[in-house]
Amino acid sequence: MRFETVTFLSDYGTTDEFVGVVHSVIRQIAPEVRVIDLNHHVPAHDVRAGGLTLARSAQYLAPGVVLAVVDPGVGTTRKAIAVEVGDGQSILVGPDNGLLAPAVAMVGGATRAVELIDEAYRFPAPGPTFAGRDVFAPAAAHLCNGVELTDLGPEIDPFALTPAMIPITREENGELLAEVLWTDQFGNLQLNVDPAEIEAAGDRVELRFGTRTRTGIRHDTYAEVAVGEVGLIVDSYGLVSIAVNRSSAAEELGLFTGDEVRIVLTPDDGGGQARPGSVTQVQIGAKP
Amino acid sequence: MRFETVTFLSDYGTTDEFVGVVHSVIRQIAPEVRVIDLNHHVPAHDVRAGGLTLARSAQYLAPGVVLAVVDPGVGTTRKAIAVEVGDGQSILVGPDNGLLAPAVAMVGGATRAVELIDEAYRFPAPGPTFAGRDVFAPAAAHLCNGVELTDLGPEIDPFALTPAMIPITREENGELLAEVLWTDQFGNLQLNVDPAEIEAAGDRVELRFGTRTRTGIRHDTYAEVAVGEVGLIVDSYGLVSIAVNRSSAAEELGLFTGDEVRIVLTPDDGGGQARPGSVTQVQIGAKP
Amino acid sequence: MRFETVTFLSDYGTTDEFVGVVHSVIRQIAPEVRVIDLNHHVPAHDVRAGGLTLARSAQYLAPGVVLAVVDPGVGTTRKAIAVEVGDGQSILVGPDNGLLAPAVAMVGGATRAVELIDEAYRFPAPGPTFAGRDVFAPAAAHLCNGVELTDLGPEIDPFALTPAMIPITREENGELLAEVLWTDQFGNLQLNVDPAEIEAAGDRVELRFGTRTRTGIRHDTYAEVAVGEVGLIVDSYGLVSIAVNRSSAAEELGLFTGDEVRIVLTPDDGGGQARPGSVTQVQIGAKP
Repeated sequence: MRFETVTFLSDYGTTDEFVGVVHSVIRQIAPEVRVIDLNHHVPAHDVRAGGLTLARSAQYLAPGVVLAVVDPGVGTTRKAIAVEVGDGQSILVGPDNGLLAPAVAMVGGATRAVELIDEAYRFPAPGPTFAGRDVFAPAAAHLCNGVELTDLGPEIDPFALTPAMIPITREENGELLAEVLWTDQFGNLQLNVDPAEIEAAGDRVELRFGTRTRTGIRHDTYAEVAVGEVGLIVDSYGLVSIAVNRSSAAEELGLFTGDEVRIVLTPDDGGGQARPGSVTQVQIGAKP
Repeated sequence: MRFETVTFLSDYGTTDEFVGVVHSVIRQIAPEVRVIDLNHHVPAHDVRAGGLTLARSAQYLAPGVVLAVVDPGVGTTRKAIAVEVGDGQSILVGPDNGLLAPAVAMVGGATRAVELIDEAYRFPAPGPTFAGRDVFAPAAAHLCNGVELTDLGPEIDPFALTPAMIPITREENGELLAEVLWTDQFGNLQLNVDPAEIEAAGDRVELRFGTRTRTGIRHDTYAEVAVGEVGLIVDSYGLVSIAVNRSSAAEELGLFTGDEVRIVLTPDDGGGQARPGSVTQVQIGAKP
Repeated sequence: MRFETVTFLSDYGTTDEFVGVVHSVIRQIAPEVRVIDLNHHVPAHDVRAGGLTLARSAQYLAPGVVLAVVDPGVGTTRKAIAVEVGDGQSILVGPDNGLLAPAVAMVGGATRAVELIDEAYRFPAPGPTFAGRDVFAPAAAHLCNGVELTDLGPEIDPFALTPAMIPITREENGELLAEVLWTDQFGNLQLNVDPAEIEAAGDRVELRFGTRTRTGIRHDTYAEVAVGEVGLIVDSYGLVSIAVNRSSAAEELGLFTGDEVRIVLTPDDGGGQARPGSVTQVQIGAKP
C-alpha cells in the first residue's frame, strides 16, 4: 500500500448517507486505508470556504490522499483531477474549480496533475451527480493501493488549472481593509490579517464595518475578553480573529464570512498606501 | 474474524453520545472490526426513511454486518432480529419493524433469520430503552467474531417478518402519480420514478402537486438547470429527481418527502392505465 | 503500543474542521490508534454537560485514553492535565476545570495526575486557542505510544484538581426536589433520580415544575406511553426519565436541562426529610 490515510472534506453534510457511502467505496477498494473526516459541513457549493478549510488544515494533515468534494459543477465539463504535491508525498483529488488551489499552494505547489478519465478507475454510474462516490473515491482508493497517478488519466499542466481567489488586505486612507475569512462554530471571526499588519495600531484598535465603529481590545486568549468587550485574538492559525466573551462575535456584531472589516491603523494619517485590488489568484502550479 | 466491517445506520443523531457508545461496545467485543457510519440523521422514528436509505446504499456497502436502529418500539414485543442475505455474505441486525426489508429485498432476499434473545450475547441493561447498545451492537460484534447466527437465538421464518411499505407509481387519467421518496440535504427531491416511465412525456414535463402546476425540464446535471427553472435529473441512484439551480427545490416548491407529485404523460389522453393501489409490500423472504 | 483506543469528546461541533484536525494529529503521532468519537456536540463551553456525558458513558468505554475538551478557559492559567485511573488501565486527558471529575469518580477515582507542560510533547502553536490540537491530542497520542505519564509534566495531587458540582436530590415537605440532568435528542428528560427514590410514590406520580403540575405515569418503555400522557421511564442509564409519545417531552413540557422538577412523594405528609444542600462536589482523588 502506497498511502494509508485518506483525508476527506466535502459539503455533503451528514443529513444523508453520502459520506458513509464514500467510506464504503474506499473500504472495498482499499480495505486497510484509514479515512479521516476533516469536515463535511462546508456550506453547500461554497468552493472558497472548502478551499480555505483545506488550507488552514494542510500543515496538520497526515501525508496521503486528500479527497475534497465541493462541486456545484458536478457532471459538467469541469475536470475531475488529481494533483500531486511534494514530489509524491501527498495527492489531492477533487474537482478543478479552485477548491484544491489554496492547500496546494500552502504546501509548495503541484509537481504533477492528471485528469481522472480512465474508466477502469471509475464506477459506472446510474446518473452523473455523485462524483464523490463514482469518480473521486475510487481514484483516491486506487492511488492508496499504488496505482500510478498517470494511470488515472492524461497529465495536465498544473498552471492550466482553475486558481482560487483569496482576498488580501490593502491599506487605504489609514485603514486596513480586511475581510472575514471564516466564522467558526463558536462565532469567532477570523480575518485575513496577520498580527504584524496591525502592530502599529496598538492594543486598542478601532474597527469599522458597515456604518458602525467598535473598539477592539488585543488579548492573548478568549477567556481574557471581558463581558461587553470586543476582543482581538491571534487565533490558532496565527491570524487576527474577533471574539467576544463566551458568546458569538458573529451574532453580536452582525458580521459573517465575506464581510469587510476596516481596521484603523493611523487615525490621524489619511495617506495609507492604496493597492490596486483586493483579491489575489492562488495558482496550483509549483513555485519556481 | 468472519466479518471485518460493520455498517451502522440509526436515528440517534449526533447531539448525544449514543453513536459513540455503540462504537465503544463493538470495539471491546470485536476490536479489529471497522465501523462505517452510514447515516445517523434518519428522522427520529422514521422507519421508512431509514429503510430507503439502506436500500439506496445496499449495492455500495462493504460485505459484513449492517447494524440498523430506527426503533420506536424499543423494549416492547417487537422482535430484535438478524437477517442473513447472500447465503451468509452479509447479515443485517436491527428491529423487526420493516426497517431492514427494502435492503434485504434489494440484495435478493433473506436466506435465514433469527430472533436475538440469547442472554449470553446481550448486555444486562439498567433499562430497556437503548437496544442499540445492549442488544444490537453486541450481536453485530459477536457475528463479526464468528459466532453462529443460530447461536444468537431461534430461527424464524423470513416471510413472517414485518414487511416494508414502499410507494409505487400508478397511471391515472394520463398522469403518473408519483411520490417524493427522499429530500436530500441540497433540497433535491427524489421521486419513485424510473426514467423509462416518463420517457414518452418528452423533455418538458408538466408537474402537478397540490393545486399548482410547474414545467419540469429534463437535464443531465444539476449545473445545467437554469436560474428560475425546475429541472428533472436522473440522480445518482437512477431515479428521477427534481432540482433547481444551486438552491433547494424542496424549499422553492414547498414539497417534501411523502408528498405526491403528478406527472402529465399524455396531456391529450384521458385514458391512462389505472392500477389498484399505490403501495407495495416488500417482504424479507428470499425470492423463489 | 500501550493503548490502542482514544475516546474523544468535545464541544467542537462538526461545522468546522476542529475534530478532523485532532484526528490527523493523533494519526501522525500514533498511526495505529483507533479514535472513537464519543460526542462533539456538547453545548459550547458547557463543562457540566460534558462531564455528565463522560460519566454516563464511562462503563461502556474501551480501556485506553479519554481525550476530553470543553475548555472555555483555554490558554489561561487553568491547567492542562492527564489523570490516571485504575492504576493505569485508562488515562483521561483534558483541562482542569471539573470536566473529567464525574467520570473519574465513576470508575473509582484517580491513582495519579500530571500537568501537561513538557514542551517535547506539545505542538508549537501560532496562538494559544486550540489546545485540543496543540496540547491534548499530542499528549493522548504519546501516551498511547507508551510515553510515561510522568514524562508529560510534574505530578500533581488529584485532590487539588477542580471538582465537578453535581446536583443531588433532596426531600422537602413531602416533595423530592430533582433536576433535569440531560435532554437527549429525542427530547427525553433525564432526572437525577434513582427509581428507588420514588418507589413509595406509586405508578402515578405528581410532577411539579414552575407553576404547573402534571401526572407522570410509570412505564417500562417509551412505546407504552399513551398519546397525551406524561411517562416516567427508567432510562438506559438506570435513572428516571420523563418521556411523551413519539415526541419531545422537553418541548411539550417546556422543560430543559438544569430545570427543577418536584416529585410529590407523600401528598398527605408535609414532613419530608430536608437535607442541607442540593449540590455535591465530585472530587478526582481516589477513594480510600
